[in-house]
Amino acid sequence: MNRQIVFAGPPQGVPSLESFCLTSGSIQEPKQGEVVIQTLYLSVDPYMRGRLGGRPSSHPPFLLNHPIDGDGVGRVIESKSDLFQKGDLVTGMLDWADYSTKKANALNTIADHNIPLPTYLGPLGMTGMTAYFGFTDIGLPQQNETVLISGAAGAVGMFVASIAKAKGCRVIGITGSDEKQRRLVHECSFDMAVNYKKATFLEDLKQACPHGVDIYFDNVGGKITDAALELINRHARIILSGQISTYNSHGQDIGLRPFRTLIVKSARAQGFVVWDYKERFSEGLAQMRQLMTEGKMKWHTTIYEGLEKTPQAFLDLFSGANFGKQLVQLR
Amino acid sequence: MNRQIVFAGPPQGVPSLESFCLTSGSIQEPKQGEVVIQTLYLSVDPYMRGRLGGRPSSHPPFLLNHPIDGDGVGRVIESKSDLFQKGDLVTGMLDWADYSTKKANALNTIADHNIPLPTYLGPLGMTGMTAYFGFTDIGLPQQNETVLISGAAGAVGMFVASIAKAKGCRVIGITGSDEKQRRLVHECSFDMAVNYKKATFLEDLKQACPHGVDIYFDNVGGKITDAALELINRHARIILSGQISTYNSHGQDIGLRPFRTLIVKSARAQGFVVWDYKERFSEGLAQMRQLMTEGKMKWHTTIYEGLEKTPQAFLDLFSGANFGKQLVQLR
Repeated sequence: MNRQIVFAGPPQGVPSLESFCLTSGSIQEPKQGEVVIQTLYLSVDPYMRGRLGGRPSSHPPFLLNHPIDGDGVGRVIESKSDLFQKGDLVTGMLDWADYSTKKANALNTIADHNIPLPTYLGPLGMTGMTAYFGFTDIGLPQQNETVLISGAAGAVGMFVASIAKAKGCRVIGITGSDEKQRRLVHECSFDMAVNYKKATFLEDLKQACPHGVDIYFDNVGGKITDAALELINRHARIILSGQISTYNSHGQDIGLRPFRTLIVKSARAQGFVVWDYKERFSEGLAQMRQLMTEGKMKWHTTIYEGLEKTPQAFLDLFSGANFGKQLVQLR
Repeated sequence: MNRQIVFAGPPQGVPSLESFCLTSGSIQEPKQGEVVIQTLYLSVDPYMRGRLGGRPSSHPPFLLNHPIDGDGVGRVIESKSDLFQKGDLVTGMLDWADYSTKKANALNTIADHNIPLPTYLGPLGMTGMTAYFGFTDIGLPQQNETVLISGAAGAVGMFVASIAKAKGCRVIGITGSDEKQRRLVHECSFDMAVNYKKATFLEDLKQACPHGVDIYFDNVGGKITDAALELINRHARIILSGQISTYNSHGQDIGLRPFRTLIVKSARAQGFVVWDYKERFSEGLAQMRQLMTEGKMKWHTTIYEGLEKTPQAFLDLFSGANFGKQLVQLR
């Protein structure tokens, strides 16, 4: 018996549990070069909204009535590949299921068993690589620059803050509650945080960035980004990692066009997906390990228990309640 | 007697002759290190709209009741500097006046008298440098890529087309009349041109770019840029040189926000002003001279006669009627 969550169809606007269906099937027999993996942890990430369909996305849509797949950690229980033995721990794209049958060459070994497994879906996972390459490769940070991060309480936002702090930058976060604002400063690497839901948001943001913004790491888009653009300095870099505020809206994203501001400031805005950097992941992983060793990587993980909670863990990414990396641990 | 055109105040929306006033004064006595220049040609450029005030601009606003200044060519008639002798031909920021008194170290000598003087306000002037550095440094063109240019019939657009063609790219222009569309292909370096005023614009644009757009050189912004963004390829480069469609509109530039498209396409949009590259002008000038020598630089110049025509020459930049570089020749 292999419980699995299959894609039940694209949502109209805000996703709901109706896009997901818990079913059960058999474990797919591995072919030569494949392995069977027992799922231990699954990652839920905002980019997966794009895969639910209904709009252009940087990732291919999920297939109807097929298991959802995403970043995960698991244990090899059967191997028809020279790359892995039974018992090996691996990361890679796994099904939202108790067991996945996958090509061995698409998986990565977890060699260091001293690091807690959720870390491989955090700083040492795709969210970590998103933060590292987006921030360093597009952001080109310099010491003493001001870095502004929207979606600060998301996993990517927290990782960017720690990397930026380690580079000698001043780090400001934008988030949606006073509680998260407090926690970002006390538990994470932010120098200051601003609550965008307050009436005084624009003023608070200006006060938090008295020297303007040199690097804006954008996970959110919309009106929050409009506000950030008012503060950018000449030659600012805008890293477009996500636009979560727009993912669930109907129709086109209408608002303030930013291109005139980019000209006035000789500024650059660049979109990316983590896979643009796949040839350089070993560099990124080494840098993230180094920051962890030095105690400079601060983040929070929220763990949901049980495969059946995976859709809800995903939906909660859009509720404004999440703090840090959201994972599901399979029982 | 020195006739001069002074700034009479910012326009409400579309600029008119009321922002300019023809007066006369005396020639300012040169101090040590200064020269007096008799104006021969004046350049009018879209970026000068920003200097008329009323909105953020990459350039400082004109001063009320002081002469408008812009790129020009002139002859030194009096020198209190070792850098120039009486009779020398120079380029630089000159007043819209019969005579300007300027610091010698802010001017450049015209050494090669075999090249027609208007060329120093064209390919070898600021418009040429805008085209060269924006296109090559931000665009990073590769052979066989598709280059789309908005405001194709403007001076910068024409220069970009010739540079792109010399780099082995396929070059498509967007313009506002069938007549200009025809001339861009027959008289300039465009492979094809599309008229954005036609009802079939979107369809025509798609047909002209069957392999999508790798580099979009944007002089226009607004709905034309919305259309261009629909066609960009992965890793496209968007060069933000101007947003002329928005310069004269009231209030904010509201429309389709482009950042989600940039993420989906891992694309980059970068604003710039030509002065960002001032340390590299000698490189740019050498490259443009080379293209001219090889007969690869194709453009058109419209010359207005008489200082008093300068405001109208400037206003005509926004009428949609201009074709190529607009200059004023002083009698």
